[in-house]
Amino acid sequence: METRTSSSLAVGVDVGGTRIKAGLVDEHGGVVRSTRRDTPDRTTDPGVVEDAVVAAVDELLHAPELAGGAVVGVGIGAAGFVAADRGTVVFAPHLSWRDEPLQATVATRLGMPVVVDNDANAAAWAEHRFGAGRGESHLLVVTLGTGIGGSTIIDGRVQRGRHGLAGEFGHMMVVPEGRRCECGNRGCWEQYASGSVMRREALEMLRSGSPHAAGLLEWCDGDPERLDGEDVTRAARAGEGAAVELLAEVGRWLGVGLANLVAALDPGTIVVGGGASEAGDLLLAPARQSLARHLTGRGHRPLPPVRAAALGVSAGLVGAADLARRAGQAERARHTGGAGPAPRSGTTGA
Amino acid sequence: METRTSSSLAVGVDVGGTRIKAGLVDEHGGVVRSTRRDTPDRTTDPGVVEDAVVAAVDELLHAPELAGGAVVGVGIGAAGFVAADRGTVVFAPHLSWRDEPLQATVATRLGMPVVVDNDANAAAWAEHRFGAGRGESHLLVVTLGTGIGGSTIIDGRVQRGRHGLAGEFGHMMVVPEGRRCECGNRGCWEQYASGSVMRREALEMLRSGSPHAAGLLEWCDGDPERLDGEDVTRAARAGEGAAVELLAEVGRWLGVGLANLVAALDPGTIVVGGGASEAGDLLLAPARQSLARHLTGRGHRPLPPVRAAALGVSAGLVGAADLARRAGQAERARHTGGAGPAPRSGTTGA
Repeated sequence: METRTSSSLAVGVDVGGTRIKAGLVDEHGGVVRSTRRDTPDRTTDPGVVEDAVVAAVDELLHAPELAGGAVVGVGIGAAGFVAADRGTVVFAPHLSWRDEPLQATVATRLGMPVVVDNDANAAAWAEHRFGAGRGESHLLVVTLGTGIGGSTIIDGRVQRGRHGLAGEFGHMMVVPEGRRCECGNRGCWEQYASGSVMRREALEMLRSGSPHAAGLLEWCDGDPERLDGEDVTRAARAGEGAAVELLAEVGRWLGVGLANLVAALDPGTIVVGGGASEAGDLLLAPARQSLARHLTGRGHRPLPPVRAAALGVSAGLVGAADLARRAGQAERARHTGGAGPAPRSGTTGA
Repeated sequence: METRTSSSLAVGVDVGGTRIKAGLVDEHGGVVRSTRRDTPDRTTDPGVVEDAVVAAVDELLHAPELAGGAVVGVGIGAAGFVAADRGTVVFAPHLSWRDEPLQATVATRLGMPVVVDNDANAAAWAEHRFGAGRGESHLLVVTLGTGIGGSTIIDGRVQRGRHGLAGEFGHMMVVPEGRRCECGNRGCWEQYASGSVMRREALEMLRSGSPHAAGLLEWCDGDPERLDGEDVTRAARAGEGAAVELLAEVGRWLGVGLANLVAALDPGTIVVGGGASEAGDLLLAPARQSLARHLTGRGHRPLPPVRAAALGVSAGLVGAADLARRAGQAERARHTGGAGPAPRSGTTGA
């Protein structure tokens, strides 16, 4: 039933705070070619970020895999608040965009239709379509990176909220008067359970001079300032005690916040993605225990499984590409009177 | 387009921890006749509660307003976890029901179709259809009673979650190692922002012997043990200083939790219902301030309005009746090949 153009490939772009990743994605979520750029500094002109996005897409549009044909669509997942019109990036803490008409600007420059969504929505959509959330009618995806993003997908539809701003799970307060967050509040969940927390806690432990922390020094060439979250994860994998403890502590807080989300949303499955999820069960086993310990009504209700995301760091671009593919199908279905799967409402059915 | 039987009235029943309220409800949400029973003690046989429900419905089925005709349906909103099958009450903290097949039992005893839902879902549905949430595509309803219940209604559909257990907002943790909750956890939101908190805090203040609290004694005939949340509200309305402070404190916590829910769900409008909402702006003005202070991304996003519920204590039974009415319409539409508004999926379209 799928309408095809000259190829079955779509372009997906994931615009993060540090890197722009783009890829040619097939209809099964496979990335057949990818490219990346550094994200221009947030102090630059917003147009510079768009230059980098357009250059990355343009590179892929000339890839040999397309054999001179066109792609079925271009999707962009952006690390920021994307308005309900799915065209404007209202606010992006890590980018220079403020009320940036990203969709229109990039579409004009590329001369083709473009779909824009929040990066966490795009990544969640990828897990729903091709990853650890397949077949789940009520999916909660939580993405642990610098902060905590996420999305819920219910009956095959991304829940974007009234203004497109749903899923800012990392900024739910879990500790009154707690740690200061980059959003300006205190006690946000992401100050206790994100990837950057691992680094912060490890650094604090090292600075304390505790002998318990000494083992961590081996993982950063003896320089605490060089330690990052990935180092902590690698150390924990190798059995380094303090690193294992740190991951377990972050996992415990992850479970506390998940219990809050399950109380409110009652998902059937939880998928945890993002860089921090690379730690696997070192993080997720404590998170599951903590969820089981903190969930209200436990013992009288099913406990949703907590799974590691399956698509890794490509999830954002894979999801963005698929959202673009579906938007294109819906558009063509409107013009040809019904070919392709019709969305239930809205422009993409997602 | 509406299919009619011998009358246009439906029966709605609201089964709470202390009272069973039932009413004959017209298609505009008007209650033309009502009745109530005390809820049998939670230690009794589960069937005793069902006896009371059946007796209340039976009384209404013989009401003169029906002129001997039939009702279009019977809906029950129950204070408990209602399973996704919408037939079984899995667990009801304030009732004797555990895995109680309420829908089947009452339907058999009454000899007519019965619809069962969570009481907060029913109340939220009433506000969506007839009350303060009309016209809002992304509605969040938070109900303050003994605890905090609630529901989200998106594009005209109640969000029930994978197992029917969504909306347990009151059991989202806001204070680590905080006040013990009846659910067994600590620090649940409803331990800081529900109707019962007003009474607890007033009582603590009175027991402290502070002269600041003395004014409260006038509202309970000098006996602190007789003070309840309604007394505190009445005192605050009359300008009693300590009572005004208590409501403002509860309102502040209400706003903190609402900010968490807005971060996650991005509703367009928030409706606050339940007994505690009778305090009006004495509670809601501090809640709005607190929401505005704690919402992540504030200044870069619209602040959803926080409105008092419009249907008061009847919301639950009005909503239950309307859910039954819609289920009946959907059922008849299936049998007659399309008369009446067709739901998008499921049995009720709600």
